[in-house]
Order: sequence, then C-alpha cells, then structure tokens
Amino acid sequence: MDSPTATILLSCPDQQGLVAKVANFIYSNGGNIIHADQHTDFSTRIFLTRIEWQLRNFNLPREVIAPAFGAIAKPLNAKWQIHFSDTVPRIAIWITKQDHCLLDLLWRWQARELPAEIPLIISNHLELQPLASQFGIDYHHIPITGATKQTQEEKQLELLAHYKIDLVVLAKYMQVLSSEFVARFSNIINIHHSFLPAFPGANPYQRAYKRGVKIIGATAHYVTEDLDEGPIIEQDVVRVSHRDVAADLVRKGKDLERLVLARAVRLHLQNRVLVYQNRTVVFE
Amino acid sequence: MDSPTATILLSCPDQQGLVAKVANFIYSNGGNIIHADQHTDFSTRIFLTRIEWQLRNFNLPREVIAPAFGAIAKPLNAKWQIHFSDTVPRIAIWITKQDHCLLDLLWRWQARELPAEIPLIISNHLELQPLASQFGIDYHHIPITGATKQTQEEKQLELLAHYKIDLVVLAKYMQVLSSEFVARFSNIINIHHSFLPAFPGANPYQRAYKRGVKIIGATAHYVTEDLDEGPIIEQDVVRVSHRDVAADLVRKGKDLERLVLARAVRLHLQNRVLVYQNRTVVFE
Amino acid sequence: MDSPTATILLSCPDQQGLVAKVANFIYSNGGNIIHADQHTDFSTRIFLTRIEWQLRNFNLPREVIAPAFGAIAKPLNAKWQIHFSDTVPRIAIWITKQDHCLLDLLWRWQARELPAEIPLIISNHLELQPLASQFGIDYHHIPITGATKQTQEEKQLELLAHYKIDLVVLAKYMQVLSSEFVARFSNIINIHHSFLPAFPGANPYQRAYKRGVKIIGATAHYVTEDLDEGPIIEQDVVRVSHRDVAADLVRKGKDLERLVLARAVRLHLQNRVLVYQNRTVVFE
Amino acid sequence: MDSPTATILLSCPDQQGLVAKVANFIYSNGGNIIHADQHTDFSTRIFLTRIEWQLRNFNLPREVIAPAFGAIAKPLNAKWQIHFSDTVPRIAIWITKQDHCLLDLLWRWQARELPAEIPLIISNHLELQPLASQFGIDYHHIPITGATKQTQEEKQLELLAHYKIDLVVLAKYMQVLSSEFVARFSNIINIHHSFLPAFPGANPYQRAYKRGVKIIGATAHYVTEDLDEGPIIEQDVVRVSHRDVAADLVRKGKDLERLVLARAVRLHLQNRVLVYQNRTVVFE
Repeated sequence: MDSPTATILLSCPDQQGLVAKVANFIYSNGGNIIHADQHTDFSTRIFLTRIEWQLRNFNLPREVIAPAFGAIAKPLNAKWQIHFSDTVPRIAIWITKQDHCLLDLLWRWQARELPAEIPLIISNHLELQPLASQFGIDYHHIPITGATKQTQEEKQLELLAHYKIDLVVLAKYMQVLSSEFVARFSNIINIHHSFLPAFPGANPYQRAYKRGVKIIGATAHYVTEDLDEGPIIEQDVVRVSHRDVAADLVRKGKDLERLVLARAVRLHLQNRVLVYQNRTVVFE
Repeated sequence: MDSPTATILLSCPDQQGLVAKVANFIYSNGGNIIHADQHTDFSTRIFLTRIEWQLRNFNLPREVIAPAFGAIAKPLNAKWQIHFSDTVPRIAIWITKQDHCLLDLLWRWQARELPAEIPLIISNHLELQPLASQFGIDYHHIPITGATKQTQEEKQLELLAHYKIDLVVLAKYMQVLSSEFVARFSNIINIHHSFLPAFPGANPYQRAYKRGVKIIGATAHYVTEDLDEGPIIEQDVVRVSHRDVAADLVRKGKDLERLVLARAVRLHLQNRVLVYQNRTVVFE
Repeated sequence: MDSPTATILLSCPDQQGLVAKVANFIYSNGGNIIHADQHTDFSTRIFLTRIEWQLRNFNLPREVIAPAFGAIAKPLNAKWQIHFSDTVPRIAIWITKQDHCLLDLLWRWQARELPAEIPLIISNHLELQPLASQFGIDYHHIPITGATKQTQEEKQLELLAHYKIDLVVLAKYMQVLSSEFVARFSNIINIHHSFLPAFPGANPYQRAYKRGVKIIGATAHYVTEDLDEGPIIEQDVVRVSHRDVAADLVRKGKDLERLVLARAVRLHLQNRVLVYQNRTVVFE
Repeated sequence: MDSPTATILLSCPDQQGLVAKVANFIYSNGGNIIHADQHTDFSTRIFLTRIEWQLRNFNLPREVIAPAFGAIAKPLNAKWQIHFSDTVPRIAIWITKQDHCLLDLLWRWQARELPAEIPLIISNHLELQPLASQFGIDYHHIPITGATKQTQEEKQLELLAHYKIDLVVLAKYMQVLSSEFVARFSNIINIHHSFLPAFPGANPYQRAYKRGVKIIGATAHYVTEDLDEGPIIEQDVVRVSHRDVAADLVRKGKDLERLVLARAVRLHLQNRVLVYQNRTVVFE
C-alpha cells in the first residue's frame, strides 16, 4: 500500500451503470482499487461515491487523469473532485485562547495521524504564540473588533492565499466569520461545543447545565454562512450527572471537542466526506 | 435485605449538620441505613438527600415516623417525602397506537423490574386494547379532539382518582396535556423521541434526518406545563449514519425510547429522583 | 424500492478489476444497483463484496442469474452466495427458560423489523410454550441430558429439515451444541452474555461482578465447534458501578442481550454479514 | 468552596449508626460537609464511605483531627485515611517510548485538572527526555534488563523516596514490576490497552484484531503483584469495524488510553477511590 493513490469523490443524479462506469475507468487503465464505497439517497435520487486506487502501474499519466475522467463524468452531470495522496493538503488552524484543540491537533500531526502540513496558525489573541513557536509554525495575530472585522478578514484571506491553505480548522476560534468570508473560502471545519442542534450559539455548557441535561456533546461541521447550521461531519457525547457543575461540563466537553474535531479533520484529509444538501456522507 | 424499608427524600437550604441530623434520626430509633446519598448545589445553596433504612427493629411505629421526622424537618425549612417499600405505587400507562414502550414496560413489570401495580391503561385509540386484555389490565378508550379535550381530561382525572393512581407514564401518548391537567395531577413521566433540547415538538426523527445529525437520542422527563421543557430524568443516544433514512431513525429510536423510559420509571419508583429548579438529582 | 432485489455476497483472492467485473454483470443485464460495498483485507489479500440490485427490468430470468454469475465467479476463484429479497428465510428460535430475547425477537418480527418467517421454537424446557402459542408458533420440547444429547440432536436436525429452517437463533439456549451438530447445520447465531473474549463459558455476570469491571457487554456470534469462539457479528456494552450487584448486572445485561442479538439477526437476514477466517465483514 | 477541605475514606464491617457517627464527628466540631457518600456491600457486610468537609471554622486543630477521628474509628474496626486538600500529592510518571499518555497528563496538569505536583519522570528509554525538559520535570533514565532489574528497582525506590512520591502512574511503561517492588510501594496506577479481563498481557490490539472484536477498550487499574489483575478504577471502549486494521486499533486505542488513565488519576487524586477485595468503590 506504499504506492501513492488517487481518490475520486463524485455525486450525480442516480442512474443505471454508475458503479460500472467509474470502476471500468480505473480497471481499463490498469488501476488497482483499494477502497470503493457508494451511497444512493433515494429520496433525492442522488448517487455519491468514493473510489481510491493505486497509481503504480496506472496507465494514464497523472496530468491526464482528470481530463480523462472528466469526459466520463460530464454526461453523468456529475460534480467531482480528484485528490492525489502525495499532494499533501495545507491546514491553517485558527484559535483564540484555549489550547486543548490546538495542542491535540499538533500532537496528532506529529504522530502522523493527520496527513497534512500545518504552516499557519491565526489567532485574535497572543496567548498561544509560544505554543506555535515550539512547533515551528508561523503565528499571525489578527485581533478583531466590530469596526475592524472587514479589514481583518481581508488580511486573513491574504494569509490563506499566501500560505496556499487548503483547509481552515477553527479549533475554538471564538469569532463568527462573515458571509463574505465564507463565500470566498469555503473549506472550513468548526468545532461547536454542544450536540447540535441543541445549544447553538454562545455558552452551550452553561445552558446545558441550566437545562439539566444528562448527556453533553460536541459537533464538528463545515462552516456555512448560517452559524452552527453547516453540514455535520462528526458528533460525540459524554454522560454528566447532577454532581457536574458547569465547570465540569466544560472540562468533560474539552475532551469531546478534541476527539470530535480531530476525527472530522482526519476524515476530511482522507477525502472521506462528501457534502450534499447540507448533509454529509462519510465514507469510513 | 428482605425487610421493608423506608425512604426519605429531602431538600432544604444548605446548613451545617444536615447529614448528621437525618442520620441521627434513623440511628437513634434503631434503624439500619442501607442507602444514603446527598448532594449540595453550591450555586443555589440547596441540600438534597435520599436515605433508606430497614424498618425491621425500627423503634417508631410506622404511623409515627412521618410526624416524628416532620418535627426535625420543620426547622430546616425542608421539603420532604417518605415512602415505604411495601406500599406499592400504582401506575397508569397512557398510549396512542405504538406498542413498543407499552410492551416493554409490561414485560419488565412481569419480570419484576418495576416495583409497581399497573391497573390502568388509557388511550385515545383502540388499537392496543387486545394487549391490555392479554395482561389483564383495564383499558379505557378516551378519544381527544380539540372540542372535547377539556371534558375528556375531566374523565381522565376521574379515572386516575378512581384507580388511585400515583404515577402516569406517557408511553408514546401523542397528545399534549393542558396546563390545568398538569396542575391537578403532577406525577407524570413522558418519553420524548429526541435528545432534548434538540428537536422538541413534533416529528423529531424527520427533523433529525433532515439536519443530518450523526447521533440521535431519547429523553425521559417529568411533564410540566411547558411542553418538552420539564425536568430531565434520563437520556441516551445511538449513532446513525448517512445510510439511515428517517425510517431507520424511527426504528433505532424505538429501542432508545424503550430503554430510556423504562430506566426513568424504575428510578422514579425506587424514589431515586428529586426535582428542584426544573432539574433532577438522580441518586443511583 | 418496492421491486424485489437480488444480493450477491462474494469473497475471493484480491486482483484487479473485481469491482468492475461484478458491476458490469449487473449493468450489462439492465440491473439498477441500490447498494454496493466492498472491502479488501490487505494482510490476507482477500476481497469481499456485497452488491444488491433491483430485479425489475433485469434482463436475465431469475433461474439464469446464478449460473450466469457463476461463469464470472469461477475464474476469480470466488466463494459466493445469491439471495432474493422475496425468498423469505425461515428461522428457528431455540430457548431454555428466559423469555427476554425470545419476546424481543417476536415483537420485532411482528413490527416487521425482521424479514423472516418464524415457524419453529425449540426448547429443552416447557416454561415458554404459552408464549409460542400466543404468537401461533410451533413449540417443540426437546429435553437434553448427557445421555440423550446425541439422540435429541438427531430430532432437532429432523425438525430443522422438516420446517425448512435457514437460520437457527440461540436466544439464551443454555446448552452446548455438539461438533457433529454444527458440522451438519452451520447457520447458527448465538448471544453470549459477556463482552467476548472476556468471560467465555458459564456465569459471566457473576464473574464480571467478582472481577469488579466497570463495563459489561454482550456478544452475538456465529456458532462454531469451539464454544464462544465463533465469528463475532455484533457487540455492545453498558456501564456498571460498585452499586450494581450481580443481579443488577443480569438485569442490565438482559437489555444488552436483546439489542445485540436482534441487531445481529437483522444484519444476517439482510445478507450484510460475510465470514472469513473466523472474522466478519458487516456491510452496513 | 475556596476553603481547604479534609476528606476521610473509611471501610469497616457494616453495623448500625455508621453514617451518624461519622457525620456527628464533623458536625459536632463545626465542620461543613460538602460531599458525603457511602456504600454497603451486602454480600460481604462491608461499609465504605467518603466524607469531605471544609476546614474553615472547624474547631479541631489540623494535627488533632486524625487522632480524634481515630478514637471513633477504632471501635468500628475500621481502615481509614485522611487527606487535606492543601497537601498536594506528588506524582512520578513512568514511561517507555510512547508519548500520548504522558503528554495528556502533563497538559491536564498545566490546565489544573490534576491537583498534584509532578516532580519526576522515570523511563527505561531516552526518547521522551526532551518532553520532560520542556515541562521542567526531572527525567531519570533507568534502563532495565533481566539481569539488572533487581538493582534498578532499588534505584527506582530510592528516587520515589527522594522525591517524596505519593503515586506512581505507569503511563505506558512497558515493563512488569516485581512483586517485591509492589510490596514496598503500593500506590501505583497502570493503564492497560484492552478491556480487561479480555486480552491481558502483551499485544492486546493485535489479538483484538485477530479475534475480530467489534469494540476495543482500555482499563486503568491499581497494580498488584498479579499482572493485569489489580482493582479496576475505570474502563472505556470504542467501536471498531472490519475496516480497522491493527494499526487503526492502536490509533483509536491511544485516545481511549489517554482518557481512561487521566480519569483514573484524577479520581485517585480527589480521594474518590476505595479498594476492597480487589474491587474499587468510586465515589463520583
């Protein structure tokens, strides 16, 4: 399995022969499929698939693969992406003051759990700059106020372009991105510290405590212009009891946030997540 | 442990010596405590306790226990209840057409998991009457329309009085009780088919499917005049994936509903649940 | 999706073009695939797949499908099965005295969660005969002693043949089947009341209590000649605490047993489970 | 709650008046109980309790508390300990080459989740020395071979004495301690990377993969002279599927190990764990 691989993610209106057509493309060019999965949403008649194959001995030169597959995908009226495993995606992590999600991502990155480069950290505060230095990652301090938000988002977009960022991970970044920002950079994963759609918005732990819930959760989702309404990638929960005050919910929740965000980022980096109609298909 | 037991549930403003005072009452009268638990909510300075002791060799005659303890509780400004394990509470189960929660409760009742009598089933439909007959339980058909609701609730209250019901269990009873009803009969447990406060109200599974959540849940709570806002007794969840359509969520949810409702009813019957400020303390 | 479907389960040595070959067989004959999933075990180079398609408008007559596919499968050196959704499998449930798993399976069967017929219940005791009558299912009482085991297993095999049974579900059947029996009838699912491989054999709850575990489990597996060593289909767990005595473990465990066994039986009936090398692939 | 507190952990043969006697001791000396919990094991007639109270305004000078309580405990034939919240326990973390549990403990320590000092790290390898330096913790490299084990354990015991260590945490220390060592230093918590009693000993993930389990786990326990047989403090599990190879089990397991070990250490540091008969009572 040490050959580089190509992965196609595709969605299109359902019709006969889709699995065969995609599989034939790989097979007829000498590719060895190592993962293939598909899903049909019968309520909307949408077909979605993920197919990954080894590039060693594949007969098409790499630069020809996309156009060749495009010729197959076009009559299917398909949306599709192709990814090569040796083209490592570049992540920017955005944070405020809390370090748990950042540290967890960096530790997993070092442990080679996350197939990515992390050249950039952006924060509206200075507290975590030493952590960035320790890992040798550039840290840009971009404070945000109501008045400066628009200007600062321009700066942020410039940084993303400069560092050739493919994915922004909001690892407890306690600011809302503007619709304009999201329209211009769309690959953003956020961790929300509740079991959405319960407790969207601010202070979910305090509200969970007040409501007296017996289980709390965390949700990783893609960011859309509607706050906390984007497609959910991963969720998890943990039990709480009457003995847990709001501070205990925060503490227990931090463990959830770390796990849920890391799982979602990893799934995204492995090109296992397909979005349609504000939902995700996760090809695990 | 085959002696009958007495259980006191008490809540009062926190102050020194509460554990000692309650324990001394039992000890000085020769009682053997078999369970004692307490909780202090430091944000509200409320103390809550559950204490259970064997009545065998207890020096106070049963009819004197409550007044004797009342003399201790009064200066503490306490709210309290006392229950005797050989006074078996009487349950009415209310249903509409779905049988899974009803059947589960009846099976547990037969298996002696629920220390209660179940003399009464009320339904706004006729479908499940045969099930009631099979278990030898009276079944009252009380259909509800907007126009008849008030009259029919009177009938329901009369039935509860006639059958000396202590606890109403809404086991998928798809009608909202009026505030007047709840004001007049307050011991009601409901099962809601979502992880509250997510998806309150109607059609939670369809809405969960539409939102694309990765986990669904069920919630058992006491009924208050605010729909789906009462104190939560128990919750649980199960994973779902993109392969699960709304019908799968319903199917998986039914298993959750059965378990969560049964646990909540059992905890209530064992006098393990104390309510304060729209929250529960569950002394497990 | 109301057309009947055909499902192929196949395993073979991994090689290029397997997905394409199977998909082409369906597509070239006009079939519409509604589920396809595959897995490659790279440590053993075994490829496994499940593919389901609608029979409406499929060009091959039903009796020709198997031989036609066989011609494709043979050069692949594949083991494979084909199932038609309108050929309903027939289950025999075997029990001893405990009713919880039996009742749960029967309730799900009535609720149409289990696509099967249940014409036969076998027990080494008489206690649950009334339950069988109530559901209109034949009940055969076959007591077992050390001396009679061999003779009685002959009777059991005759009953399985007579009732044309496809699957035996051991729903808390507290007897060990002989190797000879298992060699002659191999489609058997058992529920073991522990988290295997912890606590195989007798009295798992008592041993779990004694060991002081904080979580207990249940395991559904295919039966092989090695007791509790067969391929695991499904497992689940529940938390316990020091407050739970052995009887509480039994009570909590019964809920697990019901859920885990029902899930495993349903997965089997949907032809989602493939066994290889004492492991299962579950195509959910 | 900012007053220092005292906590008594006590176990003794069950008898009447135990709760009252302990509570009276606190109350009569002016203490304010903030947590009290007890448990009776009826099969062995053992009573266990944890009681915590604020020292502010407590009438007994600190050095008198233990002897005064001892006078009460003696006629009860009780084993007991007393802990003061402002006497911070001292931890030594022992590791080999894996960093995940160590890093997690250190992060929680910095985040003030673990009320302890961590002055000492011991390892039989050198790899993680830089991590220790980074956190300013002394790192002692004590390699172990069969021949040197006895001598090296003497060194380890000297270090524990020198650093006044109260608790040893084996955070993936891949060496077995001798019975002699355990007899001389008994407060040791280990994390085992399986759901005990499943897969004790070496290579649990590989064996779990081979067995085809659907759930894996981790177990934190006190170390006794019987390997992997000590009293269990905490366990947790995570689902795996046929898609997870042994390396995925290791990866998923690392997250479990971190969480389970950290929870166990925290519970121990909060004096919430009482051991009797190779079991734990965890007063959460």
